[in-house]
Amino acid sequence: MSEIPQSKKTRASARRRRGRFRERKQIKAPAYIKRQIPYYEFLGEEGINKLEDQADWIIQEIGLEFRDDPRALEIWKAAGADVKGTRVRLDRGMARELCKTAPAEFTQHSRNPERSVRIGGNAQVFAPVYGPPFIRDIKQGRRYGSYQDFENLVKIVSQLPSLHHSGLVIVEPCDLPVSKRHLDMVYAHMKFCDKPHLGAITEKSRAQDSVDMARILHGEAFMEENCVIMGNVNTNSPLLVDRVVTEAAQVYCGANQGLIVAPFILGGAMGPVTTAASIAQAFAEAMMVGAFTQLIRPGAPFVMGNFLSSMSLRTGAPTFGMPEPVISNLIIGQLARRLGVPLRCGGSLTASKLPDAQAAYESADSMMSTVLGGANFILHAAGWLEGGLCTSYEKLVMDADRLGAYQVMLAGLALDDNAMARDAYAEVEPGGHFLGCAHTMANYETAYYDALLSDSNNVEQWEESGSKDTAQRAYERWNQLLKDYEAPPLDQSKDEALKEYVAKRKNEIPDAWY
Amino acid sequence: MSEIPQSKKTRASARRRRGRFRERKQIKAPAYIKRQIPYYEFLGEEGINKLEDQADWIIQEIGLEFRDDPRALEIWKAAGADVKGTRVRLDRGMARELCKTAPAEFTQHSRNPERSVRIGGNAQVFAPVYGPPFIRDIKQGRRYGSYQDFENLVKIVSQLPSLHHSGLVIVEPCDLPVSKRHLDMVYAHMKFCDKPHLGAITEKSRAQDSVDMARILHGEAFMEENCVIMGNVNTNSPLLVDRVVTEAAQVYCGANQGLIVAPFILGGAMGPVTTAASIAQAFAEAMMVGAFTQLIRPGAPFVMGNFLSSMSLRTGAPTFGMPEPVISNLIIGQLARRLGVPLRCGGSLTASKLPDAQAAYESADSMMSTVLGGANFILHAAGWLEGGLCTSYEKLVMDADRLGAYQVMLAGLALDDNAMARDAYAEVEPGGHFLGCAHTMANYETAYYDALLSDSNNVEQWEESGSKDTAQRAYERWNQLLKDYEAPPLDQSKDEALKEYVAKRKNEIPDAWY
Repeated sequence: MSEIPQSKKTRASARRRRGRFRERKQIKAPAYIKRQIPYYEFLGEEGINKLEDQADWIIQEIGLEFRDDPRALEIWKAAGADVKGTRVRLDRGMARELCKTAPAEFTQHSRNPERSVRIGGNAQVFAPVYGPPFIRDIKQGRRYGSYQDFENLVKIVSQLPSLHHSGLVIVEPCDLPVSKRHLDMVYAHMKFCDKPHLGAITEKSRAQDSVDMARILHGEAFMEENCVIMGNVNTNSPLLVDRVVTEAAQVYCGANQGLIVAPFILGGAMGPVTTAASIAQAFAEAMMVGAFTQLIRPGAPFVMGNFLSSMSLRTGAPTFGMPEPVISNLIIGQLARRLGVPLRCGGSLTASKLPDAQAAYESADSMMSTVLGGANFILHAAGWLEGGLCTSYEKLVMDADRLGAYQVMLAGLALDDNAMARDAYAEVEPGGHFLGCAHTMANYETAYYDALLSDSNNVEQWEESGSKDTAQRAYERWNQLLKDYEAPPLDQSKDEALKEYVAKRKNEIPDAWY
Repeated sequence: MSEIPQSKKTRASARRRRGRFRERKQIKAPAYIKRQIPYYEFLGEEGINKLEDQADWIIQEIGLEFRDDPRALEIWKAAGADVKGTRVRLDRGMARELCKTAPAEFTQHSRNPERSVRIGGNAQVFAPVYGPPFIRDIKQGRRYGSYQDFENLVKIVSQLPSLHHSGLVIVEPCDLPVSKRHLDMVYAHMKFCDKPHLGAITEKSRAQDSVDMARILHGEAFMEENCVIMGNVNTNSPLLVDRVVTEAAQVYCGANQGLIVAPFILGGAMGPVTTAASIAQAFAEAMMVGAFTQLIRPGAPFVMGNFLSSMSLRTGAPTFGMPEPVISNLIIGQLARRLGVPLRCGGSLTASKLPDAQAAYESADSMMSTVLGGANFILHAAGWLEGGLCTSYEKLVMDADRLGAYQVMLAGLALDDNAMARDAYAEVEPGGHFLGCAHTMANYETAYYDALLSDSNNVEQWEESGSKDTAQRAYERWNQLLKDYEAPPLDQSKDEALKEYVAKRKNEIPDAWY
């Protein structure tokens, strides 16, 4: 009575053919994804209008606080904003109008031109987790991240074909002084990986160091015309923008580099507990800072971010991969396209402490919504655990394996004559099988996504190879990647200049651990 | 530099408020889902036309084999089909025309009217895994399913609010004779659960037993006008329909009951290795059997199913949760809506041997596609492991927990004044927090989906409660559900009559183990 796919016929035939199936050719991964499928438009016109109206209302009636940066207030005043103390209000439509000079899409150049990515339009770019102070692997357990972990992670990310961007703080190198670790992190991304990456933002001088190091790597003239580095900042929701944000905007956008602005809103804490209101607030905050970036330098690359989280109503703790943030990602995609700016969403999010089933369920649903919603830059796409407090070596490679599946989905469906396979029906009779037919042999190498960490063997084969779960297989994979790592070539004079810059700055900056 | 959602402010505030957050009220689960969100239309008009044309071409030029059932061939001949030997071809459009008498939606009545479900239209119904001969739990490991396991599973399913239907073969009770176990299974569903369920199909007499038992439970007159039971059959792809299907159609549709027809196509084996061709073939096969059901009895409930699986190109084994079947589910939804019949898709599918991360990633992506694609009856929505060979106690409750999240998503987004929360901004200043405000207190009980098996505690709390992974928490939950089980009331005279029927039939049928 069972509905079992592995019929005897299929299994036997598969075994017979297996010998003929050569090892798949290594397919060169594209630098980023060019989306070929429709957006999933969750809300209709009326709903979107309502959210836009609410965002306009927030900006005009409530306004945003811009604190600790008098220069930011001057910039707003000069632009004609209604500034009372540190509260900034804009007339309805002004923020949207200012955002019009932000590019709808742009290229973030990498030191390897083949790895440069488009941000915006139909491009989608996946980047690893950002920010956790802790690291976990299944053998050593959970501990503070170290520089060695950080370098390991950069080297692993550099080899994962479905990560297009290396982000920045894949884990905090907690054994380095807070005041200096940005130098080591930026250098490691430049040295050990040739994908594009982010720069530091926690203090103006650290943002400036990042931009200065990028000038060494890419050349000053090139950078004046092109984006090679971006900063990623969070507003201090609700409706508060601090100096970290406005100074980062001045450093990055001032140098014609990119700024990603992501309000982080835990619904019921940093925003109302209802999802619609949180979405509108996030949109208002991001649009307002987007407008500010364009006052700094019209045309500077700006990426509208959002980070909406739900809450456990039993404990007040943030939850991830739940339907409310999933819906938010879809709707924010609609709002960003209407505003005409690129969108950042995250990612493979979870509250789980382990790379287990909870982590995977929550990550998959969260990630799928960024894919369907058309997010252009997806931070935290791999490696995130424990609500962002912990990076997992295993989950980094596990998530990345699933990202490859989304990449295939985003390529859309072939509908040409080969895809329709009419000739195959002349060769294969009803009740027969297609395993040996010419059409199968001509197409099998590229027909299906090959998930490296998914075990599709039968239970006997799986037991023979040690009854390993996904995390155990992932442990083997990341260790193998570390063993196989080869540094991408870097011009020696640039490397020397970067090292010199780092040494000089470390000499100038006192150690600080906070 | 980290982007950590659990800011100290939030955590402390959450702790302060926690005392005031009362235990959530038990919310009565609806009998089925009324979808409020748009379908995700993966293909445009041109692509859908192409697939419909291919299906028409298959039916007209290649045709389907109807074997081992001369009566089926007579029915086709009488309808004007081109029948040569056992090959049946229909003129372009004829199958579609015949399907027009099938209801676009119908009710499958349960013995508890509050549990009756709609099949079709904007209704979505989740049912558990169907068919595995093996069972696994994390303590006892993997073994053949027994009747005790089967009864346990029915009792667990009866209590899971996001399973609307109890299916049939949640696991094969392998300790009962093959010739008789259908009687025990159908009786157990009728006795221990008051959700709607399926009947047996493996032999005509077993289908007849199922319908006869339903007559005892629901009354002959009621059944003549209403659907109370359905059979679920697979075509023998490619393009072969055997007696199991045509006889089940005669028994179920002949009695005005429902038939679900799901071609199972492992691409590259039972269909071409290209996804577009497999979709068109599945559609052709299901539409052809749908047409046949309407020749048996116009107006009989027919559900178009599909089961498309990809293949590991390294080993030839079936794979699940991969992008190609995800795409297929979305497109089949479009085809079914154009044909105007309800759609069955599965479900929380995976090739994993354990309820681990692979199982969850694959299940989530697979399940999400049925949700977005609008499948009306989703079999295998919970409990499936190992390519359908094994039921997992833990995964049954784990998947069901995630089904609740999809249910919330399908309800859409509130955009009324309460959802927009403008008053909250009068109470909460920029930089403040919403934890204590009136709007939060009025809405927190229903604001977010509460996933029982997701642990969102911080790592210290999680370690204090034993550092359990998802599967361990799931083990505790299903054991608790078994302990808490209470049988739904069943009219004693009907129960006696059912028992009598089962005893009589067991007496008549010889034991057989194949």
